[in-house]
Amino acid sequence: MHKEQRQQTHALLRQSQIDQALFARPESVKWLTGFAAPVQIGIHLQASSYPLVWYDAGQYHLITVDAYAELANPYQDSDLNVSTYQGYRVDGPIESGKRLLELFRKLAVPRPGVRIGLEREYVSELVAAQLRTDDGSIAIDGWLERLRQIKTAEELAVLRRNFGLGDVGHVAARNAVAVGKREIDVWGVGHNAIEQAAGCRVPLGNDCVLGRRAYSGWPLNYEIAETDSVIVDFSVILDGYWSDSCGTYYPGEKTPTQTKIHQVVYDALEYAISLVKPGVVARTIDQKVRQFITDKGYPNYPHHTGHGVGVSGHEAPRIVPYSAEILHEGMVIMLEPGIYLPGETGVRLEEGMLILSDGVELLTHHDKS
Amino acid sequence: MHKEQRQQTHALLRQSQIDQALFARPESVKWLTGFAAPVQIGIHLQASSYPLVWYDAGQYHLITVDAYAELANPYQDSDLNVSTYQGYRVDGPIESGKRLLELFRKLAVPRPGVRIGLEREYVSELVAAQLRTDDGSIAIDGWLERLRQIKTAEELAVLRRNFGLGDVGHVAARNAVAVGKREIDVWGVGHNAIEQAAGCRVPLGNDCVLGRRAYSGWPLNYEIAETDSVIVDFSVILDGYWSDSCGTYYPGEKTPTQTKIHQVVYDALEYAISLVKPGVVARTIDQKVRQFITDKGYPNYPHHTGHGVGVSGHEAPRIVPYSAEILHEGMVIMLEPGIYLPGETGVRLEEGMLILSDGVELLTHHDKS
Repeated sequence: MHKEQRQQTHALLRQSQIDQALFARPESVKWLTGFAAPVQIGIHLQASSYPLVWYDAGQYHLITVDAYAELANPYQDSDLNVSTYQGYRVDGPIESGKRLLELFRKLAVPRPGVRIGLEREYVSELVAAQLRTDDGSIAIDGWLERLRQIKTAEELAVLRRNFGLGDVGHVAARNAVAVGKREIDVWGVGHNAIEQAAGCRVPLGNDCVLGRRAYSGWPLNYEIAETDSVIVDFSVILDGYWSDSCGTYYPGEKTPTQTKIHQVVYDALEYAISLVKPGVVARTIDQKVRQFITDKGYPNYPHHTGHGVGVSGHEAPRIVPYSAEILHEGMVIMLEPGIYLPGETGVRLEEGMLILSDGVELLTHHDKS
Repeated sequence: MHKEQRQQTHALLRQSQIDQALFARPESVKWLTGFAAPVQIGIHLQASSYPLVWYDAGQYHLITVDAYAELANPYQDSDLNVSTYQGYRVDGPIESGKRLLELFRKLAVPRPGVRIGLEREYVSELVAAQLRTDDGSIAIDGWLERLRQIKTAEELAVLRRNFGLGDVGHVAARNAVAVGKREIDVWGVGHNAIEQAAGCRVPLGNDCVLGRRAYSGWPLNYEIAETDSVIVDFSVILDGYWSDSCGTYYPGEKTPTQTKIHQVVYDALEYAISLVKPGVVARTIDQKVRQFITDKGYPNYPHHTGHGVGVSGHEAPRIVPYSAEILHEGMVIMLEPGIYLPGETGVRLEEGMLILSDGVELLTHHDKS
């Protein structure tokens, strides 16, 4: 799996005369290997590091704690080895830092005269110290993000499944919005529906907030009143890939203001989608959609108009006021205009789409009415 | 908050002639400050690092992404400053790595002739490079774990609440165990009950597995049959602290084997608890409880007998065969004997307790019958 990603990375590194490199950012490791550690809230309890990828002249080594051996081994390929170090043990002290270092020293031997590429924001000092040579290192943070924009068939399959699970969550959450229920209740119903459909734990990202109190945020105890809108924004995070999606729901009839702004946001989203095609500059869409909203007399939203998704929840191409990035076939992007009237109400609607040669294929199918 | 922790750390560092230090391990940062970033699956999407703590001669600086400013600021104290760097922005590129570095260079200025303490397993190369001086650095990984064992009143309040939420989850999960339901269904019911009671999102750790297939693991699609046991092990992870707890539940009547082994495990747990008092060596408890089980003719369990909990889910004191650690008043430990008959069934029961001068106070109150 993900051989295309490794080949592209190999070409990029060669082009920059980098023969050895260490990838430490979780997004890079997932993208290069297809392997996503089932992380709960961060680094595995008995690991010393997120999984790492060591690159040496076209060959890749995935280095991870032994608790993940069974999950990671199937990702081995002609250009990808998987090596694990001891984490948890019951018969002696847990020394995963030492074990990682021992393994790393064996696998990652700097060669004389070679510049080493390093993801410096994520590699630990412990590991980086092993790669300090007279030939120096070069920071390669962010280098893969550009490559990550165009999705492969493997990635699209995972993304489609995750977007589909998001749809399931939206049906449940929309039905759960009722006077007297709380944000956390709506979130729980949506999350539960997603995990039931997936048949496994599914980390869920983003928002479930009353429109009057915020445009984003984690769900809390706030109770839904008759005139409230509820902004429900779900990212399904499974097998390392993030979907995204937002709907705005009501406990009964919309108020007159909600009816108006919901329609404007709906139209703004349709308009935004109609602008997407290969060759368009990201900021053009951003500017036109903001203009669409302000032309109707409503305030400009404080967030991006959209963004890419993949091994992270927000990535290139970013549909923002400053972005000169050009849209290409094969990108997966989100668009999410909103209108927020703080203290009163708020609406956001968001769809995800694959960019085709002549437009888009929608990946979200929740009810945005 | 957590001033005692900072004072203890100050004393420890002084004693080792360390005048400046950088803490990068999430557990250390939580323990030193009381602030726990509401992490979803790791580092904040637009941060460049977990929160960091810079120590300089008794003064502490918490350094975190601006998205957490509102949450982190209340933790400021006479010996703790909070400083944030820019993460997300809509009007220009997101350059959190650069912004973190700028802030870090201002706050963390190495002083000549001073050895700097570094948590080398967690500090990034990007940040560590700022602290490289002729005077060198010293690895302080793991130094705080010993101090973390004795809980303060502040910590006990958080732990009690988390253990109480675990109890709520167990009631719901126990009731949800029925023929035809799946592991993930039981998990979802328990998780949902916990979040509803907490009124917010609650990351939940550990296991929900059929006893015949595993003794630990994340819940999957496996369906509960009439003769199954379901091992439900919940860690409630809220405000940075982990509780823990395990019960074993059945869809109807226990089989004769289950009746027998459930009773042995129940008795083993009661026996284990009776052994806990200040001055006891951890491995003594481990050995005696294993012996208790094997004396009844059942296999020794493959995991620890117990462990401490706090800002991590497994920490000192570890109740394991090799541990010479001595139990002290004020520690919070888990005890969790089990009997596993792979392919057939399995039982584990676990309680958490605060060690008192003359025994323990139980912190878990789920039904272990």
